[in-house]
Amino acid sequence: MLIPAPLHFRFATLAAGFKKSERQDLALCVSDLPAAAAATFTTNRFQAAPVLVGREIVQNGRPVRAVVINAGQANACTGEQGLQNCRETLRLVAHPLGIAPEEILPASTGVIGVQMPMERWRKAAPELVAGLGLARPEDFAKAIMTTDAFPKLAWRTLDLGAKGRVSLLGMAKGAGMICPNMATMLGLVLCDAQVEPRLWQKLLAEAVAHSFNRVTVDGDTSTNDTVYALANGAAKLEPQGADLEALAQALHEVCDDLAGLLVADAEGGTKVIHITVQGAQDTAQAENVARTVGHSPLVKTAFYGRDANWGRIVAAVGRSNAEYDLDAVSVSLNGVTIFRNGGPVPGDKDAILAASLRERRQEIRIDLGQGPGTYTLRAADLTHEYVSINADYTT
Amino acid sequence: MLIPAPLHFRFATLAAGFKKSERQDLALCVSDLPAAAAATFTTNRFQAAPVLVGREIVQNGRPVRAVVINAGQANACTGEQGLQNCRETLRLVAHPLGIAPEEILPASTGVIGVQMPMERWRKAAPELVAGLGLARPEDFAKAIMTTDAFPKLAWRTLDLGAKGRVSLLGMAKGAGMICPNMATMLGLVLCDAQVEPRLWQKLLAEAVAHSFNRVTVDGDTSTNDTVYALANGAAKLEPQGADLEALAQALHEVCDDLAGLLVADAEGGTKVIHITVQGAQDTAQAENVARTVGHSPLVKTAFYGRDANWGRIVAAVGRSNAEYDLDAVSVSLNGVTIFRNGGPVPGDKDAILAASLRERRQEIRIDLGQGPGTYTLRAADLTHEYVSINADYTT
Repeated sequence: MLIPAPLHFRFATLAAGFKKSERQDLALCVSDLPAAAAATFTTNRFQAAPVLVGREIVQNGRPVRAVVINAGQANACTGEQGLQNCRETLRLVAHPLGIAPEEILPASTGVIGVQMPMERWRKAAPELVAGLGLARPEDFAKAIMTTDAFPKLAWRTLDLGAKGRVSLLGMAKGAGMICPNMATMLGLVLCDAQVEPRLWQKLLAEAVAHSFNRVTVDGDTSTNDTVYALANGAAKLEPQGADLEALAQALHEVCDDLAGLLVADAEGGTKVIHITVQGAQDTAQAENVARTVGHSPLVKTAFYGRDANWGRIVAAVGRSNAEYDLDAVSVSLNGVTIFRNGGPVPGDKDAILAASLRERRQEIRIDLGQGPGTYTLRAADLTHEYVSINADYTT
Repeated sequence: MLIPAPLHFRFATLAAGFKKSERQDLALCVSDLPAAAAATFTTNRFQAAPVLVGREIVQNGRPVRAVVINAGQANACTGEQGLQNCRETLRLVAHPLGIAPEEILPASTGVIGVQMPMERWRKAAPELVAGLGLARPEDFAKAIMTTDAFPKLAWRTLDLGAKGRVSLLGMAKGAGMICPNMATMLGLVLCDAQVEPRLWQKLLAEAVAHSFNRVTVDGDTSTNDTVYALANGAAKLEPQGADLEALAQALHEVCDDLAGLLVADAEGGTKVIHITVQGAQDTAQAENVARTVGHSPLVKTAFYGRDANWGRIVAAVGRSNAEYDLDAVSVSLNGVTIFRNGGPVPGDKDAILAASLRERRQEIRIDLGQGPGTYTLRAADLTHEYVSINADYTT
């Protein structure tokens, strides 16, 4: 399938030797036109050097020209030296591109607490730039992978009639919110519309809040999580009114597709559990219930085991911080109501649910019967393979 | 080894058929003298019927005579019928004992959401009472087990010179804070001192806060957690002043021993990770950091894998809610400082830590460099066996 990239973005990738394998591990995306840049970053207090540097660049509000991402080294928890190294990598890439280092956004994913091998960067940077235009979006998405099983891309094209077309392309990595040794989810969304930078930031923040921030594998937030979005105006179209709403919707859909791919590729995951909470007092309480259920090791292992063990779901609701009337709570699993009025709904749940518990998609609906608050979270199950990947036996 | 029970407590156990196996699953402890009763219960909002009934009995402040515990059925999430059944079990046991149902404290552990088989209770109760005095404390501790690998007992004797002696005996069950299908940790502490009921409650609450509440396996709080403590005065001694402090200390030690046995018997656990946080602004922030680290699947799998992956510990600290100066944080693992001044401490940590990472006891020390707040949490690792036990394949 030919993936339709937005106009005037070019890609390059390289095997620079950051990973132990000889896989591609360095990726560059260049916009031929100055692009409005938006970004969202991890909320972890120990933020990686590229997060600190990237935030600084986005916050100064000037257009950017490129994004450079390496896999294999996170450059996190590396102190002042790590910051200097990050800035140096931008200089190394900016020079052959003939642009300023402040026009490049950095991101890294890989081992925490190790300084980056700068000799390799010095050798790789000119080679990377020399290959610009030779790589496709799929190559870019592959080069930023760590434990991912497959590259993650999503796209939308808006046909605005006589006014023309606008394209969106999103690429992401992450086998869940965080990877073993390697930390992080990274996302890059490219767009050829013209969008005012502050508006672009607002659109991205909303899209991320309703997509990437609503999936979880293990609840461990990385030090490097980053989503960048560039809008370079190459389509010569500045969407307004209904067109702008359509663009916002398309941006949300691209992010949501990518978020779905992350949780589908969860380390060792065999299920995607869609947890919808409704009837909470407010969104925050609905989110609290959804996350308590979605992070419960007992709920997650039960789904792995295809076990209709609804008591674990109710127990997780019970230890959340939400306010509700115990007798008003109802819980359904794959469309079957299992708990209501403070007690079990009669019937042989094991038999009724046996078939649906084999599916990849699982659905929990929790109604607290209190108010208008709703939240949906997609969570992975907890499997032997997750433990194997993350225990990473060194003995 | 002969376990020294406090004076005038007798035990009975029975295989009543609540468990699928033919193991003992019903346990009774009777005090020949009326005893001051104290209790702490789960904070889960969905509280099991025996938790609701037991709380009611303890709160009315009158002396109690017995504790009856069944394993195999949790009697949780069972609605009004579950409450009626629980009260009926107390009547069934009270009648042959010749005491009032309100003098018996109930506890249950097992499958959530299933009504108790009352026919079996009716058959079992007189048999159980008929056997009173034939069981030893070890038998009692065994009869309340679910997935536990071993029974859990701890005891202390206070020699108060010419005044006499006071004995404490604690028994608990729980392979971690919660078991598969079966929920719960249960604890029972017996004492032959004379203690005023409100003081006894205060002593128990403090002991539990610093022992049972500071261990974790999976962060899943059950619907049935209960610790009961009875003080029957049979030693004819009411400790005061320094003697009372010694009793409080002994009670704390018994609870702490039992808590240590719980986490040592964690489902599938191969390590006990002692996480000490110091230098926090206050105890609550220290606790928040300790729990974020102790519940991190990535930290827990790394210990299982004997992997000196300290970046995961720092990343977990970073996503906690505590306030601190990033550069003031230091982290040590098994006595080796690995992170300081915002960056890694030089040296080959894999080599230095290889031997100690094979030990059962692991130690993380985190200093936030802010204030006087400290907290210590004991956590289990996350293993293939934990997943096997809890996935509980039904296919």
